[in-house]
Amino acid sequence: MFSERILGVDTSALRRVLALVRGGSVISFAGGVPSPELFPMEELGDVIMDVSKMREAFQYGPALGIPELREELAGYMKSWSVETSGGEIMITHGSQQGIDVVARALIDPGDVIIVEAPTYFVALNTFQIYGPEFVEVPLDSRGISTELLEGLLQELESQKKKVKMIYTVPNFHNPAGVTMSERRRKKLAKLAEEFDFIILEDNPYGELRYLGKRVRSIRSFAPDRTIYLGSFSKIFAPGFRIAWLNAPKWAIERLEVSKQTSDVCTNTFGQYVTLEFMRRGYLWKNVERLRRAYWPKLRAMLEALDEFMPEGVEWTEPEGGMFVWLKTGKDADALLPRAVERGVAYVPGSVFYALKPERDRMRLNFTFESEDRINDGIRILAELLS
Amino acid sequence: MFSERILGVDTSALRRVLALVRGGSVISFAGGVPSPELFPMEELGDVIMDVSKMREAFQYGPALGIPELREELAGYMKSWSVETSGGEIMITHGSQQGIDVVARALIDPGDVIIVEAPTYFVALNTFQIYGPEFVEVPLDSRGISTELLEGLLQELESQKKKVKMIYTVPNFHNPAGVTMSERRRKKLAKLAEEFDFIILEDNPYGELRYLGKRVRSIRSFAPDRTIYLGSFSKIFAPGFRIAWLNAPKWAIERLEVSKQTSDVCTNTFGQYVTLEFMRRGYLWKNVERLRRAYWPKLRAMLEALDEFMPEGVEWTEPEGGMFVWLKTGKDADALLPRAVERGVAYVPGSVFYALKPERDRMRLNFTFESEDRINDGIRILAELLS
Repeated sequence: MFSERILGVDTSALRRVLALVRGGSVISFAGGVPSPELFPMEELGDVIMDVSKMREAFQYGPALGIPELREELAGYMKSWSVETSGGEIMITHGSQQGIDVVARALIDPGDVIIVEAPTYFVALNTFQIYGPEFVEVPLDSRGISTELLEGLLQELESQKKKVKMIYTVPNFHNPAGVTMSERRRKKLAKLAEEFDFIILEDNPYGELRYLGKRVRSIRSFAPDRTIYLGSFSKIFAPGFRIAWLNAPKWAIERLEVSKQTSDVCTNTFGQYVTLEFMRRGYLWKNVERLRRAYWPKLRAMLEALDEFMPEGVEWTEPEGGMFVWLKTGKDADALLPRAVERGVAYVPGSVFYALKPERDRMRLNFTFESEDRINDGIRILAELLS
Repeated sequence: MFSERILGVDTSALRRVLALVRGGSVISFAGGVPSPELFPMEELGDVIMDVSKMREAFQYGPALGIPELREELAGYMKSWSVETSGGEIMITHGSQQGIDVVARALIDPGDVIIVEAPTYFVALNTFQIYGPEFVEVPLDSRGISTELLEGLLQELESQKKKVKMIYTVPNFHNPAGVTMSERRRKKLAKLAEEFDFIILEDNPYGELRYLGKRVRSIRSFAPDRTIYLGSFSKIFAPGFRIAWLNAPKWAIERLEVSKQTSDVCTNTFGQYVTLEFMRRGYLWKNVERLRRAYWPKLRAMLEALDEFMPEGVEWTEPEGGMFVWLKTGKDADALLPRAVERGVAYVPGSVFYALKPERDRMRLNFTFESEDRINDGIRILAELLS
């Protein structure tokens, strides 16, 4: 009875990760969700009480989102060096819906989508729905290697293959933790122009920078070719499912159709709560709080890795976000049951590849556990890897 | 740059309707949204204050929805004579997402989808995304004519065309206002078995019955072949976008993948608010209130139609819901600008057809305006039709 489309989605990765995330008392480096004890309960209560008196918060809203929040976010985009307007913003149910809305509006079966290796695997599942051909481009410590990408694009062109889109997480990459350099962002923007493709810039972690300097958005270098995805799930509360996309004017009308046919409009109540949370300055206070809470956890993980890991194990040193990416030299899938038995969970790297999985990588989340448990967990992992 | 899929969606109907709904001071029979002055503000405030203290209401939730709400809804399904369990329920962002999640998981390009003529046109737009072939089956005052349907199925079978699904709004149809009889529901269930197709039973208005007796759900006659869609948008508050689907066990796993790739999970805050609203008995109090508010409006419209309409104009006499369907003998599209000029808006019937639009029909919403304005609006329409 099922469609080819849905049968084509390989859900094994998602299942394995969800099973890990649900794991009971283990020290979990597997998740990617915010710590509930860091939710700003007082400010939330404050804002929610006021919004609960607004009748319009309980009504249907426009497909693109409530105008006030769209304007607010257009202003926010300046902090990423993007000049835009509310007319180029759409509010979505999480960035995940942003990915789906864009894929639905752009991908025809057989279109080439370039994805990072590794990449965020739920995005892969969503792209799969629309039948593209995946091509992988490798990451190094400064993000996508644009030299390799250029070669790849030339090769694809010579094969008469049309690249429709490249999907990238430029800041504090999930799972790799790396950030794309400004030089490479510029170069990517140029390549998009030259080879006529769209950049889907997914930036859920951008505000979670603990050191170093913000790098301008890719969209600021290629405003007419980049669709930017932003999210409140990591900096406010995922439970409202409020995120947004910022797209060039020419794309908005068809993206709106894509949204309408998905779920009519984003929940109005959550939009007003988010708007008020921003307007009262609570959001930036909260981002500060999260940075202060997460930065020592990242340091604890990097220090423990340094202290305990055997020779030959390598890891990325992120300046923000939620993940450290480990190259272990051992089969991380095979090791997982023993790690869980010893009380530590991680996500094996193999799930993060569209085509050719690397089997010796691990994604380690550092935002969930306490510094002590991070230290213990890394010690145990190091023993297993020795 | 756009996909064939999105370019294939004919949005003209949606635009025209939205433009009408936004119309300023006219007497609007065009909408389909609840009256904001009927939102249960006090009970909402009450529930929201308590939910705003629950940390879990701000976190990600399971893809299928929070277990407590799924259990509650499984219990509710008994009132439609359906025996089910929480394991067969999924919470969605509005019924619209239910339609999308189901279409994504079931429809392959070229599959035959049978739709009512007329039918809810945003559902048509969503189906279109997945490339089906539409076949229309006509409605009369007792819903789908199952005799005509049987003939149609035999014909399609002889042409070796596989029917994947039939989409129906059995209670207080949008736009036709009619309710499918129990005999026909039974027959439809038998046909689904015989010709091996799925029934998508969309029931957003079922609780808004003002007279007569509830008819059992189609799903109660064909539990293994029917996916039922229920919604809180018309009986509680659309602003949370909380709805659900109730599907046979065999379908749930792939529907879950469909939901995950759409937007991960439904907003958790709205789910907890809805759950508490049900548990405290506020929902049924609210449904009673809505029935009491809408029934006199329906009566006012039917009486005005009776008093003012010229010979030859016919209309359905719904026992509930939000819409009366008028057969005017005049071109309703052509008449619309003049009606709006005279201060009355309606939705021309032509937008509600997948294939062969009837041009002399109008959909009239009766839940939005006051009884006096309903009377005035019908008088003006009658003058224009004379």
